Amino acid sequence: MQAVAACFLRYTRPGQSVVVGFSGGLDSSALLHAAACQAKESAIELSALHVHHGLSTNADAWADACQRVCKQLEVPLEVLRVDVPITTGEGVEAAARNVRHQALAGHSADWILLAHHAGDQAETVLHNLLRGAGVRGAAAMPESRGRVLRPLLGLPRDALQAYAEFHRLAWVEDESNADCRYTRNFLRHKVFPLIASRFPKAGQQLAAAASRFSEVDSLLEDLASLDLRGSPPEFPMSLGLFRDLPDTRSRNLLRAMLTWHQVQPPDECRLNEFVRQLRTTGNDRHPRIDLARYSLWCKAGHLHFKRQD
Amino acid sequence: MQAVAACFLRYTRPGQSVVVGFSGGLDSSALLHAAACQAKESAIELSALHVHHGLSTNADAWADACQRVCKQLEVPLEVLRVDVPITTGEGVEAAARNVRHQALAGHSADWILLAHHAGDQAETVLHNLLRGAGVRGAAAMPESRGRVLRPLLGLPRDALQAYAEFHRLAWVEDESNADCRYTRNFLRHKVFPLIASRFPKAGQQLAAAASRFSEVDSLLEDLASLDLRGSPPEFPMSLGLFRDLPDTRSRNLLRAMLTWHQVQPPDECRLNEFVRQLRTTGNDRHPRIDLARYSLWCKAGHLHFKRQD
Repeated sequence: MQAVAACFLRYTRPGQSVVVGFSGGLDSSALLHAAACQAKESAIELSALHVHHGLSTNADAWADACQRVCKQLEVPLEVLRVDVPITTGEGVEAAARNVRHQALAGHSADWILLAHHAGDQAETVLHNLLRGAGVRGAAAMPESRGRVLRPLLGLPRDALQAYAEFHRLAWVEDESNADCRYTRNFLRHKVFPLIASRFPKAGQQLAAAASRFSEVDSLLEDLASLDLRGSPPEFPMSLGLFRDLPDTRSRNLLRAMLTWHQVQPPDECRLNEFVRQLRTTGNDRHPRIDLARYSLWCKAGHLHFKRQD
Repeated sequence: MQAVAACFLRYTRPGQSVVVGFSGGLDSSALLHAAACQAKESAIELSALHVHHGLSTNADAWADACQRVCKQLEVPLEVLRVDVPITTGEGVEAAARNVRHQALAGHSADWILLAHHAGDQAETVLHNLLRGAGVRGAAAMPESRGRVLRPLLGLPRDALQAYAEFHRLAWVEDESNADCRYTRNFLRHKVFPLIASRFPKAGQQLAAAASRFSEVDSLLEDLASLDLRGSPPEFPMSLGLFRDLPDTRSRNLLRAMLTWHQVQPPDECRLNEFVRQLRTTGNDRHPRIDLARYSLWCKAGHLHFKRQD
């Protein structure tokens, strides 16, 4: 598993700590095994975190299986019990993912390793596009963001399966992975096999498209930086910046500014209309947007931003 | 059909000529009818072009049906007989499309109207992504390019069907549209219905994504223009331009230059490797790419371009 060694080499320093998100399934079992083989050589302090959702009647058995694997690999395991709020609109699947990501984000390790592979990436690209994503959504999951690393993103699931079989790894099958009521499983078990019957490389192609879109996304940020023309990327910012740019560039600038301030831009319709107002209203009018996490408004020739706390 | 009126208003001038690509099927029948209703008001000289591929045993009957419709609408019709080369690797479907587009491109009208709708656009986006497209491919079909206009790109097929039924239009069914050996039909009749069972708005979302990608594509051209830093977009161009930019921006600049010179950039691997060489080789080395339609090579600190004729 060159991919894990390359990832350690690229991102980690000797003595740093790395935690693997470990469900006990095939993907994270392969990742944990490869990381354990590499950890000594890279002088990495490796541990594993199993998030115990308690959603399945087998949840306790999975946690036990994870314990056994980690004991054998001599990797310390933390089992974190969480409650999944089942009342959210997004459904259990998304809620469980959010809780899991929060649990991992709260871990103190220097780096967090996730086992997403090229097949997961392809599913994410398609899922996001079907839900109306733009370039950012089509870029899907980054190989690295903050402390989170995804060393397997370039590998197809087959490669992980072959690795796991070669090393005679034991892994658990989550029976909910077969449940096509969950959108992700519907894409995996229904849509992708149909597509693959005509486009055998569809998974690889979509995963490759994701990294192209990710590059494009960073180019759009470069363009926005140039369009600041020396101003700092801070609010309040002069409305003149928007008025001097064509429409599409103004929208790109505002989108980038919000991304840099770590908030989600408004939906396309509202963003377009707001930028139109920014560019055209006189100083006597005060266009404004109030969203759950922040507000934007114009005053005295400047665009202001405030986070809602 | 507001879309056609809006298109005439936006692009045409009174007295100009417009030709509709008319297969006799539902989509182009609706388009031709709407264009005929609007032509007088916009003072447009309207005609229709039917490309007779001769692939179906019904081809003559379709041409006759087109004649009848055009006579009733008082729109002059040209029937153009073409031969589809059946030996190309891309298959009959792609070959027929190429021949059709060439036939239309050879028409002398000021504007060429095509009946592609949002469903066609969604299929094109998905098809291109499955074949490994980047942003340009994901942008799919433009609403306008050169003389070609696609006024129905924002409308779902249902809207065209409703229009055709309301106006009691007669149209022919191309039996090959049901043949799922053709990739496009496979996507239309197999993949999209499956996806739509879970994502009812998938078609609209993908079509909307296409116009977002098209906007992104033009932003990337803006960035390339800025990265020329005042140099004209012409070859030979100084290698210094590439050396002063980060890798991703260099690639974007070269891709844009080739697009402006109306040639397809090399595949991603070759482009990346060539740009790497541009940026790093000394003046004693001469990286070079020879493709079917053009060559690129370095000499005396400049990048040269020559079209193969």
